Amino acid sequence: MNYGIVAFPSKKLQDLANTYRKRYDPHYALVTPHMTLKDPFEADEAEVSKISEALTNIARDFAPLHIHASRISSFFPVTNAIYFRIEPTDQLAAIQAALNEAIPFGEKKHTFVPHITIAQKMTDSEHDDILGQLRMTGVDEEETIDRIHLMYQLEDGSWTAHETFRLTGTR
Amino acid sequence: MNYGIVAFPSKKLQDLANTYRKRYDPHYALVTPHMTLKDPFEADEAEVSKISEALTNIARDFAPLHIHASRISSFFPVTNAIYFRIEPTDQLAAIQAALNEAIPFGEKKHTFVPHITIAQKMTDSEHDDILGQLRMTGVDEEETIDRIHLMYQLEDGSWTAHETFRLTGTR
Repeated sequence: MNYGIVAFPSKKLQDLANTYRKRYDPHYALVTPHMTLKDPFEADEAEVSKISEALTNIARDFAPLHIHASRISSFFPVTNAIYFRIEPTDQLAAIQAALNEAIPFGEKKHTFVPHITIAQKMTDSEHDDILGQLRMTGVDEEETIDRIHLMYQLEDGSWTAHETFRLTGTR
Repeated sequence: MNYGIVAFPSKKLQDLANTYRKRYDPHYALVTPHMTLKDPFEADEAEVSKISEALTNIARDFAPLHIHASRISSFFPVTNAIYFRIEPTDQLAAIQAALNEAIPFGEKKHTFVPHITIAQKMTDSEHDDILGQLRMTGVDEEETIDRIHLMYQLEDGSWTAHETFRLTGTR
């Protein structure tokens, strides 16, 4: 089964992301807007209780995540995904490192760039058009996310919540 | 904000439900297959911590839910929704009553009929055709669900997980 670890921003920020995703993201219907903390990885159902235990410990260690969605950016030319850039912070880097250390499943494909995807899988020319438009609109939202979620993927690609972990620490 | 309380069945049963929902349920993309335990209700964000506390207590009281999806049925003529019938049990009736008592939001619109919707919003003749086909296929799955979820709705109608509650009691 495929698992992933995400933080959902506020309803306000999710609604904003969806105004773009509805038009520009074919994954729109598969999961609500989120910041990925650990990329999808394969694990047996038997391993999930250990993963869940590791997440419980991490959530006890970390304080709610302060995030600042500061501008609209793109991963081009690596991929043509467009996203709300979340300003990197020591806290976000630390929780991401803690997750990768405690949950040694999946490979770390790329450097962690905190973000909320709002558009992807476009042609290069669509990408350029849309990025130009969206950059002018921009985004500037600060908020605090007090929980993270372990999700799993169904055969059709959609994601269901397995468990929530409230961040109750001070790190 | 709209909240709802659901139990997600196993991945296997969700995948099975999605083979039908993909074709016959316009809510397919809004939420993964689920058994509703409390119909959507409106609550302030300020009230959510109380609701969450009530759910924590209920989850501590109830044992994992044993469910048996026994056949394919329809709410026709009340609505033309087609669903996996979940055999009513004392446990399911008790948790539903406990939720309605502890969380006095929303109105109890109808008698609680445990089910997983697989088709809805069809015309009457589509309903009759599809029900006839699906009834022949049937369903017969027994399983245990060890957690319930508090969900909230975004402006586009999709549902995000707010919190999970593990059922750790004996009731």
